[in-house]
Amino acid sequence: MKTITSRDNAFYKELKQLATSSQARRKAGQSLLDGVHLCQAWLDLRGAPVHCVVSEGVLANPEVDAVVRRCESLRAPVTVFPDALFAAISQVEHGINLAFVVATPRPAQPGALAQSAVLLDGVQDPGNVGSILRSAAAAGIKQVFCSAGTAFCWSPKVLRAAMGAHFVLEIFENVDLPQLVRDARVPVLATSGYAAERLYSLDLKRDVAWVLGHEGQGVTAEVLELATHRVAVPHAGKVESLNVAACAAVCFFEQLRQNQS
Amino acid sequence: MKTITSRDNAFYKELKQLATSSQARRKAGQSLLDGVHLCQAWLDLRGAPVHCVVSEGVLANPEVDAVVRRCESLRAPVTVFPDALFAAISQVEHGINLAFVVATPRPAQPGALAQSAVLLDGVQDPGNVGSILRSAAAAGIKQVFCSAGTAFCWSPKVLRAAMGAHFVLEIFENVDLPQLVRDARVPVLATSGYAAERLYSLDLKRDVAWVLGHEGQGVTAEVLELATHRVAVPHAGKVESLNVAACAAVCFFEQLRQNQS
Repeated sequence: MKTITSRDNAFYKELKQLATSSQARRKAGQSLLDGVHLCQAWLDLRGAPVHCVVSEGVLANPEVDAVVRRCESLRAPVTVFPDALFAAISQVEHGINLAFVVATPRPAQPGALAQSAVLLDGVQDPGNVGSILRSAAAAGIKQVFCSAGTAFCWSPKVLRAAMGAHFVLEIFENVDLPQLVRDARVPVLATSGYAAERLYSLDLKRDVAWVLGHEGQGVTAEVLELATHRVAVPHAGKVESLNVAACAAVCFFEQLRQNQS
Repeated sequence: MKTITSRDNAFYKELKQLATSSQARRKAGQSLLDGVHLCQAWLDLRGAPVHCVVSEGVLANPEVDAVVRRCESLRAPVTVFPDALFAAISQVEHGINLAFVVATPRPAQPGALAQSAVLLDGVQDPGNVGSILRSAAAAGIKQVFCSAGTAFCWSPKVLRAAMGAHFVLEIFENVDLPQLVRDARVPVLATSGYAAERLYSLDLKRDVAWVLGHEGQGVTAEVLELATHRVAVPHAGKVESLNVAACAAVCFFEQLRQNQS
């Protein structure tokens, strides 16, 4: 275990960049996992981080201590910072000051859509993207394809909202969704509040790809047109639509329900 | 239509308070609806606001103009502010600078739970509370009961996330949930990741009350114990749980599905 106390330390500066700049994260090909839960999930599902960083004041916390010991047993470097320095790294208020630097997984994109998947077509809000990833993972869906206009999945906000779902999913970003949909070998179901086809009338006892769109404008016209089905979640109330992450959860779990019953 | 240009104007100061302080909103018994969509929804569902406030720069916007005209025809006061002053009122970035001051609805609490309802037992995040209200309204549920520890429903963030759902719901805050559950005349289903009973094995062709809990700790032990059923949404993946708003949507729409089929 190493201690860094200088604000001018090169590694400390690099960490601050990773914490605050999505450009820096993309350029480095690295992500910052903030908080005990994400770090534990990474160890359980992916193994050693590139680096474990921790603030002095939480070293005695038993959960932190357990994470640090696991890192050391995996020969991952552990660096301790004074609390005042760590504050600039963590974005979690009142959180436990522990974080991992990890190599952002960049799985090779499959040749074609051939299993259940989620396509994010311009979903903007990091909380919504994170919630959708979490629901997909809980429903047993493995692949997520994101258009260039969708929020960057490995940002701290998305990571926090997804609670470790990233680590069991294959996430593909900057994907040409129209091309993917054209070549799909499974039915592609685009969600739309205006669609005539109702979710509950669909046969979902098979692999399907779900398309979720922008919070305001929905799925793009091009992808809607190319999709095999345009699907609406039936409503009973006077309000116009569901939140996109709520809509996603309803769809994924209707598929799970049909496959479990 | 009146124009106010001074930062020292008493009404302007009052608006800034409403925009930034939940204490001020509670004390005044008023809420601020920020943006065209919420204002239109209020006019459609509840009628005239107490006051319509708008920034000079958006008066020519046709949607804003239509809202202003409707307010005038309902004899609601309309006040115009210079853009620089309005900025302190609106919390929506890049939004359209139009807002309503409304009297916060304070419906009388029914004697007992006797129809489908949602009970929020310490849900903290305003985005989650807003999404749950929106899903409840879309699923045709009318009543929402919140414990004292739940986020204040009439805050700008919750209002924004719920997209007008507030205006078709009856929302009761600071409710003694254990007492409500004890006296309930409908089955009370408390959601819990650890419950043995599965959502899809329940008969939901009847009115039920759903309990959703704190993002980390879930439903309180007391309410879990008092509930008629403890229910889990079955998962297929390796992740431990769903986001509370996603869980709510899955539950509400499973009820809707059973009642529509």
